[in-house]
Amino acid sequence: MRDLRARWALEEAGLPYRTRLLEQGDQDKPEYRALQPFGQVPILEEDGLVLLESGAIVMHIGERSEVLMPKDAGARARAVQWLIAALNSIEPFVMNVAAIDLFYAQEEWAKLRRPGAVEFVQRRLSALSKSLDDKPYLDGDRFTAGDLMMTTVLRILEHTDVVSSDRRLAAYVERCTSRPAFKRALDAQIGDFKKAA
Amino acid sequence: MRDLRARWALEEAGLPYRTRLLEQGDQDKPEYRALQPFGQVPILEEDGLVLLESGAIVMHIGERSEVLMPKDAGARARAVQWLIAALNSIEPFVMNVAAIDLFYAQEEWAKLRRPGAVEFVQRRLSALSKSLDDKPYLDGDRFTAGDLMMTTVLRILEHTDVVSSDRRLAAYVERCTSRPAFKRALDAQIGDFKKAA
Repeated sequence: MRDLRARWALEEAGLPYRTRLLEQGDQDKPEYRALQPFGQVPILEEDGLVLLESGAIVMHIGERSEVLMPKDAGARARAVQWLIAALNSIEPFVMNVAAIDLFYAQEEWAKLRRPGAVEFVQRRLSALSKSLDDKPYLDGDRFTAGDLMMTTVLRILEHTDVVSSDRRLAAYVERCTSRPAFKRALDAQIGDFKKAA
Repeated sequence: MRDLRARWALEEAGLPYRTRLLEQGDQDKPEYRALQPFGQVPILEEDGLVLLESGAIVMHIGERSEVLMPKDAGARARAVQWLIAALNSIEPFVMNVAAIDLFYAQEEWAKLRRPGAVEFVQRRLSALSKSLDDKPYLDGDRFTAGDLMMTTVLRILEHTDVVSSDRRLAAYVERCTSRPAFKRALDAQIGDFKKAA
């Protein structure tokens, strides 16, 4: 669930927040659609501002935190670049595989398409891995909002060995998810869902 | 081609620029892959900064132009939100249909999948159209970088009637592409490709 992205960013930035969980069916109700046209989560509400899209929410939170968005203009532009790369050059192809596995596994087209979809995402991830090289983070020594986003995108394929079989990417995900802020965000998410269940 | 996004942003911002076209095969050469790991276009080079991802390039250019990114913090966050919505909530599903039509039309899985892929994108676009309502632009009366990106994403389906059959979205694309900066960008792009051919 993409609310983890917002939670993680808030934890990295050290900003307090409250959560409100949707109940089954809320996403399609007119009240929620008036706030979020596509019925997706999360949204961020803050002093009358309502913000959609996990990527925009993470960038908005990042404005308040040098941990997420470096002060230096070039480093900042590259943090945005990796965040966008995660959302537009990696996630769509990751999601094509995940959607086949989670929603369409029994459909004929999905069975025929899966090998090609996996091959495509493997090519993208192999290029990403090469670009990461032996740096700890995508832009070098510093974790940024770009790494936050890329990590959450790579975790979508946890049910396969596509990411875990790449030694560099597996170590990268491990490095990013070992951050205390990630652990707090994940614990809070799990806690919220347990309370709701 | 996504270089149009960068050209359009530069024209809106009134910033001078020079273009360098890749030749056939350049995208897979190690020199280019060292700059752009996925071999995509465009990249922006500026005083030693190399920036990837059309979304990040448009935002970077937007930092210099109130036409693209409003000064008011809320309006600015919403401009980013629509830019990200275009890249992450609309384009992946638009591209799934476009890829079927342009690259996989003869494959069995593509024939089986096309109706479902079209239906999915139609649902997203119908939600977008409802959210646009009778406003001229996504956030109201003002064109922003979010409209620039959404327009270029919607144009990907020009070969179908998926966008053109929605009266509101068709008028929206027409409104955005009537801007002089768009026309200059498109003319420059066509001119560059003619020169190269």
